[in-house]
Amino acid sequence: MQSIRKKLIQAFSESKGEFLSGQALADIAGCSRTAIWKHIEELRKEGFVLEAVRKKGYRIVNTPDIVTENKIRLGLQTSTLGQVIHYEESVPSTQKIAHDLAGNGAVEGTLVIADEQTAGRGRLMREWHSSLGNGVWMSLILKPHLPPQKAPQFTLITAVAVVQAIEEVTELQPQIKWPNDILINGKKVTGILTELQAESDKINSIIIGIGMNVNHSIEHFPDDIQSIATSLAIEQGAQLSRAEVVQTILERMESLYTLYMKEGFTPIKLLWESYAVSIGKRIRARTINGTIEGTALGITADGVLKIEDQEGIVHQIYSADIEVNI
Amino acid sequence: MQSIRKKLIQAFSESKGEFLSGQALADIAGCSRTAIWKHIEELRKEGFVLEAVRKKGYRIVNTPDIVTENKIRLGLQTSTLGQVIHYEESVPSTQKIAHDLAGNGAVEGTLVIADEQTAGRGRLMREWHSSLGNGVWMSLILKPHLPPQKAPQFTLITAVAVVQAIEEVTELQPQIKWPNDILINGKKVTGILTELQAESDKINSIIIGIGMNVNHSIEHFPDDIQSIATSLAIEQGAQLSRAEVVQTILERMESLYTLYMKEGFTPIKLLWESYAVSIGKRIRARTINGTIEGTALGITADGVLKIEDQEGIVHQIYSADIEVNI
Repeated sequence: MQSIRKKLIQAFSESKGEFLSGQALADIAGCSRTAIWKHIEELRKEGFVLEAVRKKGYRIVNTPDIVTENKIRLGLQTSTLGQVIHYEESVPSTQKIAHDLAGNGAVEGTLVIADEQTAGRGRLMREWHSSLGNGVWMSLILKPHLPPQKAPQFTLITAVAVVQAIEEVTELQPQIKWPNDILINGKKVTGILTELQAESDKINSIIIGIGMNVNHSIEHFPDDIQSIATSLAIEQGAQLSRAEVVQTILERMESLYTLYMKEGFTPIKLLWESYAVSIGKRIRARTINGTIEGTALGITADGVLKIEDQEGIVHQIYSADIEVNI
Repeated sequence: MQSIRKKLIQAFSESKGEFLSGQALADIAGCSRTAIWKHIEELRKEGFVLEAVRKKGYRIVNTPDIVTENKIRLGLQTSTLGQVIHYEESVPSTQKIAHDLAGNGAVEGTLVIADEQTAGRGRLMREWHSSLGNGVWMSLILKPHLPPQKAPQFTLITAVAVVQAIEEVTELQPQIKWPNDILINGKKVTGILTELQAESDKINSIIIGIGMNVNHSIEHFPDDIQSIATSLAIEQGAQLSRAEVVQTILERMESLYTLYMKEGFTPIKLLWESYAVSIGKRIRARTINGTIEGTALGITADGVLKIEDQEGIVHQIYSADIEVNI
């Protein structure tokens, strides 16, 4: 059944709004016209609006703002990322599910996505607010043949992909706050959490969690974060298709990941620095070993943040919370 | 119930074969004498031989060669490692269970141990033969506050702990073959698999799998590994208590882990090199980037193997299969 649905969605993707006859769909999917009709009904139940015209066939005229497997697959232009999709309406944490899948043989590019997370979390196990139906809460499984020490670079690759995706679907200009936040007009719109399962010298799976506020209005945020959080809709002044946001992230990510595996981190580093909010600014970095203040110089080839303090000493920061404009 | 059993085992551990009265045990465990009697019966069912003498009480006079929680706890001298024990008779892989526990909040030192693994595996997902009732198949969860790049050092710490444990319970002289094999008389007796769950810059859990052939006779091994595998019993000419082997590994490991967290890798490195089979010898290292032949010089402060080739170039090997005496 699953493969018929995939072929159907693929056919509608390629027809770009043109009618497809029931017989054509049956031929493409390798099933009966009755089976096609059943799948069409399933899509309608999911919220897809399909027009059916005698002697012409079917076409999709409207789709709801959902992030189901069918919706994300419709029009997705990737070869690996998001080609396997696990959608659930509500989960404790997409990251947790992705970890379980990764430990049980999930293929590269597997996407876990939910409409709601009841126990979403960010870096250092911090709570991440992820309400129903207005955000993108997703986790992506990659399986690069690399040692674990390369993992921090994936936070930076993902940050660039997210910025490029936002630029593509809106007119906004997001910025990256090292290591894992995306800001618009100084407010946080996206957090990234890179985790891994590995042998000591070899990554088995990288699990990249992305939490993005898309269609939130300000009242959707808890009081205590209203001054520091924002959404694409608030900044753009219009609602967006969450599925299109996800598709665009997957497409940008696939392209940057391919570039990275071929050319290494250097091209990513240049892109990252061009989007970074902190470079050249005075920042404060709170690390587990203490607080360092100074000027952010950039990142190293390994993705480590360099800060020059007042005495001119350059510190390499592997992990910290950053305050900009102190 | 579980905590009564723990206190009971603790009391028998400390009494070292002396009688403990039913009342004394009830006082220690904070329960009725009837409850004590029920727990004693449970221990008997597990295979413990308890002598009960009127007006004297109970003492343990014999224990079977089992690796249950009670058996490992009896006499265990650690403060953290093995203080939480998950025993199962047969599992696909202790490593898999430990991963699941680690992802769900298992505490540092949690031990997973089984009498049999039906799908045990070694490095690079290779099959590891782990038959019923004669080996030590265990996984240990550690939660050090360290970055992921320190993980390979844990294979080396564990190798030293295993060698010291074997030296303590036998008269054998094991050697370490970089990175993760323990040999006796040139044959493999133990494999170590270090895996991790991490954020990109911070280890959440290190999961150390140890597979040790203890009481195997040669016929226990599949034909194709009889020439390269051995057991402690084969080499020592006598059967051993598997629980004692586990306890000794946990005790040596706790002591080395404490040393490492306090003093860093240097003292471990010196111990490791003193046990290493390959140092100063001609070896062949097969890596994913090709094969390097040369003289093994030792390991770096990071646990990386150094090989000097014929041209005098020193190669740093992060991951490889090693052949010694080529």
